[in-house]
Amino acid sequence: MCVVGLGLIGGSLIRAAAGAGREVFGYNRSMEAVAAAKFDGFDATENLDEALRRAADCNALIVLAVPMPALPQMLDHIRDTAPRCPLTDVTSVKGAVLDEVGKFGLLRNFVGGHPMAGTAHSGWSAGDAALFTGAPWVVSVDDHVDADVWSLVTQLALDCHAVVVPARSDEHDAAAAAISHLPHLFAEALAVNAGEVPLAFALAAGSFRDGTRVAATAPDLVRAMCEANADQLLPALEHGIELLTRAKETLAATGSVAELVETGHAARMRYDSFSRPEIITTVVGTDNWRAELAAAGRAGGVIRSALPVLGNQG
Amino acid sequence: MCVVGLGLIGGSLIRAAAGAGREVFGYNRSMEAVAAAKFDGFDATENLDEALRRAADCNALIVLAVPMPALPQMLDHIRDTAPRCPLTDVTSVKGAVLDEVGKFGLLRNFVGGHPMAGTAHSGWSAGDAALFTGAPWVVSVDDHVDADVWSLVTQLALDCHAVVVPARSDEHDAAAAAISHLPHLFAEALAVNAGEVPLAFALAAGSFRDGTRVAATAPDLVRAMCEANADQLLPALEHGIELLTRAKETLAATGSVAELVETGHAARMRYDSFSRPEIITTVVGTDNWRAELAAAGRAGGVIRSALPVLGNQG
Repeated sequence: MCVVGLGLIGGSLIRAAAGAGREVFGYNRSMEAVAAAKFDGFDATENLDEALRRAADCNALIVLAVPMPALPQMLDHIRDTAPRCPLTDVTSVKGAVLDEVGKFGLLRNFVGGHPMAGTAHSGWSAGDAALFTGAPWVVSVDDHVDADVWSLVTQLALDCHAVVVPARSDEHDAAAAAISHLPHLFAEALAVNAGEVPLAFALAAGSFRDGTRVAATAPDLVRAMCEANADQLLPALEHGIELLTRAKETLAATGSVAELVETGHAARMRYDSFSRPEIITTVVGTDNWRAELAAAGRAGGVIRSALPVLGNQG
Repeated sequence: MCVVGLGLIGGSLIRAAAGAGREVFGYNRSMEAVAAAKFDGFDATENLDEALRRAADCNALIVLAVPMPALPQMLDHIRDTAPRCPLTDVTSVKGAVLDEVGKFGLLRNFVGGHPMAGTAHSGWSAGDAALFTGAPWVVSVDDHVDADVWSLVTQLALDCHAVVVPARSDEHDAAAAAISHLPHLFAEALAVNAGEVPLAFALAAGSFRDGTRVAATAPDLVRAMCEANADQLLPALEHGIELLTRAKETLAATGSVAELVETGHAARMRYDSFSRPEIITTVVGTDNWRAELAAAGRAGGVIRSALPVLGNQG
């Protein structure tokens, strides 16, 4: 397999894949990162065409591990040099990546992925073979997805000791807006508001610290993920504002915040008791397998070992 | 001193005060709690008149440690039986308590207090002499506050190993809305919104867990504190909604959330580097001492040992 980009995620991936006994090589545009990867014993080059020709020669799985803005350039090279290789990515927004891949005519061999792991650090030196251990790794089950490529990508995630959550790209992005991007904007608003109240920081304790923790994230990172997912974030933001506005109106009119507090508590209790059943019965490639996996993922299901593939059984 | 109410806070207070060598007795309406307190070696009674007569006889500091709804009944008894005793409280909302105390004509000897400590448990058995160690304990410096009573209350907080934050009642309540009540409502809204998105709980991780942690608090407790502070919570809620609405509009119009994210990050950074200088130079009872202490508290200042009182020096 071929990892395009050797930053935190790509660098962790090449380490984890090599650790699992896979043959893996990588590309990075920075000579320093390539030298560091080679020094650490990995097969790496700063020559993109060389890496992609090699991938094409052995029909290697190509993993796109570059930031979103670098994606079109990489896809352009892949279309020219390795258009038949199975292809995946590790980007945190899935709909926008799907659109780009489609523009370059590479959808047929593409299955999007998102390992939900990270640290505050970046670059080759921050990589860690154990980064994905136990982490959810979304593998997309969009309508176009090919069973064999899907199985390759799922096996990679399992080799990295992740648990696979099958999901449609649009549902992934809507969920990411609800559980990550909206919480980031709420945290920013809480911090801004408290910063304008003279005594607030002097008395701030647990609920403020927790509620604003993610506001300490570098603004560029928060902007990048929120703005790339604007289509899904906007309705979530709208709904969040509606819930707060209704609470404000009932508090002003009746002195009560019962509705918001009780439904919020109930939702959080459902989250605390959310179970993670293992998905074991789906046969990949059978009628309706994608919808079946999407439904199982939605219900909390995770894949912990490879599923059978139609035609490859026995 | 006399502690009225021996639940989590009152029960911790009688333990901490006794541990500091103070002479202290308590009242609780429940015979079981009184029996348990006596069994643990404390001087307690379920006879309110007896406790208050004793307080009047020795001019003891009376600490109101009952929930807000029980306050008027207690103040009524104190007016009849011990109207000249110095008086404080430990309630989490200060403006509403001030109003009640005023209604019963007991303002002259009253200095409000709020030890910012607590646990998820309640009742005598949950009490802990170390509950206040290192915790901020707000002692009010409202315009009517008497220097001698203020010093008595501050000494009690210091004896309990708390650090004293001097603050006006209205500023305390505005800060509490910003750092506690608004974060609770935001957490509830995040939980409600995510609960309506099919895949959200399946992918939820750190930023969702932190952002909704306080939504796991019992709804009655969240309602009680939010609703008792409605006057200060409403403008905070309005401002929070405004900040989010502006972010929504710029995201929709220009694709950017830069303004909210950058001001939020800057505010959170200011909080992380907020210093806690010790207040040592104010002489209690001199001209303008209350405003001086309120300004110092606002700037992060804390009192770690007793301040000099005018006329009691040297």
